[in-house]
Amino acid sequence: MPAVAAYAAPSEGAPLAPTTIERREPGPLDVVIDIAYAGICHSDIHTVRGEWGRQHYPLAPGHEIAGTVAAVGSEVTRFAIGDRVGVGCLVNSCGVCAACVRGEEQYCAGGAVGTYGATDRDGTITQGGYSRQVVVTEAFVLRIPDAIPLDRAAPLLCAGITTYSPLRHWKVGPGTRVAIVGLGGLGHMAVQLAHALGAEVTVLSQSLRKKDEGLRLGADRYLATADPETFSANRGGFDMILNTVSAPIPLDGYLGLLDTNGTLVCVGAPPEPMPLRTGALIGGRRSIAGSAIGGIAETQEMLDFCAEHGIAAEIELIDASAINDAYERVLASDVRFRFVIDVATI
Amino acid sequence: MPAVAAYAAPSEGAPLAPTTIERREPGPLDVVIDIAYAGICHSDIHTVRGEWGRQHYPLAPGHEIAGTVAAVGSEVTRFAIGDRVGVGCLVNSCGVCAACVRGEEQYCAGGAVGTYGATDRDGTITQGGYSRQVVVTEAFVLRIPDAIPLDRAAPLLCAGITTYSPLRHWKVGPGTRVAIVGLGGLGHMAVQLAHALGAEVTVLSQSLRKKDEGLRLGADRYLATADPETFSANRGGFDMILNTVSAPIPLDGYLGLLDTNGTLVCVGAPPEPMPLRTGALIGGRRSIAGSAIGGIAETQEMLDFCAEHGIAAEIELIDASAINDAYERVLASDVRFRFVIDVATI
Repeated sequence: MPAVAAYAAPSEGAPLAPTTIERREPGPLDVVIDIAYAGICHSDIHTVRGEWGRQHYPLAPGHEIAGTVAAVGSEVTRFAIGDRVGVGCLVNSCGVCAACVRGEEQYCAGGAVGTYGATDRDGTITQGGYSRQVVVTEAFVLRIPDAIPLDRAAPLLCAGITTYSPLRHWKVGPGTRVAIVGLGGLGHMAVQLAHALGAEVTVLSQSLRKKDEGLRLGADRYLATADPETFSANRGGFDMILNTVSAPIPLDGYLGLLDTNGTLVCVGAPPEPMPLRTGALIGGRRSIAGSAIGGIAETQEMLDFCAEHGIAAEIELIDASAINDAYERVLASDVRFRFVIDVATI
Repeated sequence: MPAVAAYAAPSEGAPLAPTTIERREPGPLDVVIDIAYAGICHSDIHTVRGEWGRQHYPLAPGHEIAGTVAAVGSEVTRFAIGDRVGVGCLVNSCGVCAACVRGEEQYCAGGAVGTYGATDRDGTITQGGYSRQVVVTEAFVLRIPDAIPLDRAAPLLCAGITTYSPLRHWKVGPGTRVAIVGLGGLGHMAVQLAHALGAEVTVLSQSLRKKDEGLRLGADRYLATADPETFSANRGGFDMILNTVSAPIPLDGYLGLLDTNGTLVCVGAPPEPMPLRTGALIGGRRSIAGSAIGGIAETQEMLDFCAEHGIAAEIELIDASAINDAYERVLASDVRFRFVIDVATI
């Protein structure tokens, strides 16, 4: 396959710039995708800047990919040219470990292959969605329902599944009192999903700045964590708290908001450790848990659920030339609620 | 009722000494118990020394109580004079909150009443089992099966239920790979219980000093946590880790021992916080949880389970005059595995 146009970081810390990257020749099980849109995830920034470990450069990030099928290998059965498809954070896994067999490829014992910056099973380094085309094995390609516009579907592939998976795993539904910490790219998906699942949804945000948007997205209540009253008046008031914030939080205060048997689920990993007192867990059999994206089958389930409930990401569509500025705005939490790159401008 | 003989701390930090304490006049629902044996729990030491908050003195501790029924109130239906009975960490609760209705009195929203040093629902301060008699409302009295000697039954009322409850809540059974951290009063019960539940049991102890005893109690493996090899060779090797140690542990290392979806359950609350990195939870959807004793129904279930499986505490029986020396030995982890006071010597 010829090289394809991309936006990539030429070296650690350098701004992203137009370039070309190599894609493999499609094999019999591969799907070639014309990428239409790619979401910008906070992880992209951490990774290209080397904050999560050293990378190979040039590196094109992007794991919120939406587009259409351009070609299929001879043994591909589930996709045809022109199909609306997506690719999320994973493009391969061992396929045989207990986690893979359970459909939880994200916990693959052999190590699932990330969509960019990872060593694929053929030894090449994966390149992400800030590019015109991608070649992905059929088993890791998702179908995007017609009801979801492609640009607003892209962020579902990471922000959507990362919040949907824990909401489902911890059985959120009618009668569940859920708090969503943070109303950013992940939080704004979590609010919509938890509301559609029938839960009673409260947003816990630093201030009430985005209150109107939170309520519009489906939250029943919106509380400011800067106000100590939030923690005293809502003690024991939640069954689950889904923390979408990647900065440290005061665990004691948040654990106090959980009812007996409640769980605080973290999907972000701040580099700094947080002090934990087990006494806050013991009184009420509370838990702190982590959750990573979701498996392929569950990601498809999430896309279908979003289509059924009229859910999609709220986005700011940008040209590729605005990627570096967008990164600065993501770091400043200045986005409503996800940047999506119009890949035609790459 | 006349005052009864007891061993109590006359003031914060003072050694325990013989004295008398008041018991209430038995009401229609009360059971009067002649105490035969009282276990010494680490909590007793923390409490009488004021390390868990200020207390009323004199204070007789003891919440691992075994004896026989001396008298019953007019409306008591489940117990008769001479019955072998026990009392654990709780002697009352609100009875109407969701937790109480579920039979989880330990998580009573109104605050369950501890067996000593707590304000009972009639306003009096409770006094514990280092005494000749106790008066307890029928609903908080346990039946000790004939198969369990009374002296070896006493520690089941705290050490037994504190480990049984999380093993059951997290569904430990055949095929479950359980690690028990620490082989003290709680740990030696956890090993026996997890083994009887059919789990594959590994003890994680600082050294191999108690290895023979651990294996005799039912452990399949015994590993030293002082050896870094323990953490590298057993990565992802456990479904549940039950931490019975009340000192801080390096969470990252222990979380790495958990398989996907595994849980580290802590039943001890060191005063110092432990640094937690959520990244260690996210990779594998791992959890850290706390668990407090157990409800009354579950405590009875545990006693019946122990009788059925020939399980009891391993104890060193002491005279009351040896209580203060025993405290020092508990603090030095120098006990196999629980001190029990022969209350006839009070």
